[in-house]
Amino acid sequence: MKVYLINIGDELLIGQVVNTLAADIARMLDPHNIAIAQTEVVGDSEEAIIGAVKRGLSSDCDVIITTGGLGPTRDDITKKVMLDIFGGVMRLDEATLANVAEVVAGRGLKLNELTRAQAIVPSTCRVIQNRVGTAPIMWFEKENRVLVSMPGVPFETLTMLGEEVLPHLQEHFPTQEKTLRRVLIVTGYTESALARELADVEDILPRFLHLAYLPRPGIVRLRLDGQHDDLILLEREISRYADMIGERLGDAVKATDDLTDAEILLKHLIDRKMTVGTAESCTGGNIAHQITSVAGSSAAYWGSIVSYANSVKTSQLGVAPEIIDNHGAVSIPVVEQMARGVQKALGVDVAIATSGIAGPSGAVPGKPVGTVCIAVAVGSRMVSGTYHFQGSRERVINRATSTALILAVDAITDAKYSLHGYL
Amino acid sequence: MKVYLINIGDELLIGQVVNTLAADIARMLDPHNIAIAQTEVVGDSEEAIIGAVKRGLSSDCDVIITTGGLGPTRDDITKKVMLDIFGGVMRLDEATLANVAEVVAGRGLKLNELTRAQAIVPSTCRVIQNRVGTAPIMWFEKENRVLVSMPGVPFETLTMLGEEVLPHLQEHFPTQEKTLRRVLIVTGYTESALARELADVEDILPRFLHLAYLPRPGIVRLRLDGQHDDLILLEREISRYADMIGERLGDAVKATDDLTDAEILLKHLIDRKMTVGTAESCTGGNIAHQITSVAGSSAAYWGSIVSYANSVKTSQLGVAPEIIDNHGAVSIPVVEQMARGVQKALGVDVAIATSGIAGPSGAVPGKPVGTVCIAVAVGSRMVSGTYHFQGSRERVINRATSTALILAVDAITDAKYSLHGYL
Repeated sequence: MKVYLINIGDELLIGQVVNTLAADIARMLDPHNIAIAQTEVVGDSEEAIIGAVKRGLSSDCDVIITTGGLGPTRDDITKKVMLDIFGGVMRLDEATLANVAEVVAGRGLKLNELTRAQAIVPSTCRVIQNRVGTAPIMWFEKENRVLVSMPGVPFETLTMLGEEVLPHLQEHFPTQEKTLRRVLIVTGYTESALARELADVEDILPRFLHLAYLPRPGIVRLRLDGQHDDLILLEREISRYADMIGERLGDAVKATDDLTDAEILLKHLIDRKMTVGTAESCTGGNIAHQITSVAGSSAAYWGSIVSYANSVKTSQLGVAPEIIDNHGAVSIPVVEQMARGVQKALGVDVAIATSGIAGPSGAVPGKPVGTVCIAVAVGSRMVSGTYHFQGSRERVINRATSTALILAVDAITDAKYSLHGYL
Repeated sequence: MKVYLINIGDELLIGQVVNTLAADIARMLDPHNIAIAQTEVVGDSEEAIIGAVKRGLSSDCDVIITTGGLGPTRDDITKKVMLDIFGGVMRLDEATLANVAEVVAGRGLKLNELTRAQAIVPSTCRVIQNRVGTAPIMWFEKENRVLVSMPGVPFETLTMLGEEVLPHLQEHFPTQEKTLRRVLIVTGYTESALARELADVEDILPRFLHLAYLPRPGIVRLRLDGQHDDLILLEREISRYADMIGERLGDAVKATDDLTDAEILLKHLIDRKMTVGTAESCTGGNIAHQITSVAGSSAAYWGSIVSYANSVKTSQLGVAPEIIDNHGAVSIPVVEQMARGVQKALGVDVAIATSGIAGPSGAVPGKPVGTVCIAVAVGSRMVSGTYHFQGSRERVINRATSTALILAVDAITDAKYSLHGYL
């Protein structure tokens, strides 16, 4: 089954909102062999939405999913556009009104004329009741294609896609072809060095397997995609080639699933029954946030001390004031003392500490914006380094977070590959 | 100037990577009156890319920007597609080779045949040298339209868009029309209640002004967009209507810029010369991360103690073990003690504390997944509440973070509107 996804909303086009919804929808559909073949983002204009829907209806996709433009305010015009395209008349749907009334009551509110109007829909659609919001989900059919108009609020879209829309689509378009993916997380190679290492494997890949390289500084996510009607053959072959690549790369493979940096760290910690805490200055809690975003992280993660002010570095982490005076807060001696301090304060095996200049201001002579010192303590061992990251404050924080997490993985696993050469 | 943006990459279509780049490009172009009229995401297939470029070339856009597919590996095929569309022959460009060699050397690496091949480009393009990567930026012209092919690595794309591509585009397509936007952050209204409150203002808006509602639980971002050739008239009118709306809504307006929750809190803290720290359990450092993502946050933010393990709540925040035993870690007495504990440990005026069940496991009788207790201490005052958030672990963490930040704003400003009715 192929899907043409249309996300409607000026806020997406002007960049006021990042389109996380498109990725979340894809991740939900992908395991069910439903491929997003193309996505469009269009603004809240009748002409733009009509154009997009017509392109979707004339594409080779089976399903068009639209999101957004279903709110109660005047800038939301998707229903009107669907009436233009699919015909019929606007009518108040009693079942939908009952559902809207229930949702509104569940929020402790009363229906008003705008929320009541949410139940007015084109007569040419079948309504899938939205259990978690007031915007009705509309199912239209035309020339063997299905168009599903969904709300743009991610929580509503994803809840109802999983509970109702996905099962309906699977029933409507039974599918044969299977998709499988394998991901290897590789450190110690640049993208081109890795491609050269694997050139002969790529040469012998069967036509239904495909290798993709997703590089980031210090890491390449290597993705092996496969599609075939014969699931058993597909599983056997994709495993065979993934194993072949894994053996070739040895220690450089840090994970054989599409894990985040924090997930890789937690896997290695939990395997060794080790606990971790962080002492963060420039990363400001982001390392802790990345770790605690992982379900089950409490098995290894105990806590953090975010010491943005120097007084907190001293009082909570026991960093000696004269070390800060002599070396500056952004220095190897300070991050090493921070790591020791949090190790002791929280009683954890592994400590990750950062101190740096995220910018845009704060540079001092010899330490430009983007300078970050990172230390990782593993028991009595200590690994530390000074890094220089380019770009915005957000990028410096993200790069420092990622580097600290991977440095911790390297420190725990005693990896022969080191990040240092690849930054 | 209107732009048709095409992001190329299977990783975007399958949701392995969130398309933050599209939003970042839009935010960079928007202030220069360059509007993204439409965006597409297509996979790494020749047919898909050709289709997208042809749609762009036959749209009413002046500029087509493509991102991605320019890496040195076999899955990157954009250059070949551009040759098909714009004609010419592939040739090694000496200036580009010199640039690639310099970039590679700057990373302490040596050219290999794959990185060298980055300098082979269609003869029909003009190359804009990529100062920060090996993928050349290619500028094609056809029938009064410009196509710019850019790399898909966000840091490279955004750096080179700002430094080179944007100035080239402005020179090529001088523009008259001006775009202005004003955003009001409003609490205390649902989307429909706000639309009813402002219905008469919407009735009298001139045609070149447009009001958009972006709701989230507890908050509506109200955006007033304007477009006009006459910048002075546009500035005057958009200010007049933004002021009119602001006066109508009074205290419910928490900010008159498009600020994040953390930016709103910092604004109110810095206005009052107050300092803040956080004591986080279920939000795991995300409140600290949101605050420290704001440049200049060190003026008010001192630090945090992330107390994931109960032992950390006791040892670092002074929560009495018997309180945890009697009420559970997710309880009002515990978060209130956490807030007092961090206030004292760090010496801050305002403390924000959270403890909850982010899920997917961890529910206990009477406390389902999504239960979060939040306390805000402002001097000797204390505000606290228990909330129930639905959805994934990620969503519970994000909703708890946002609610805690806005609760702190309300507590500091003694707002007459409270979040409690709107969750």
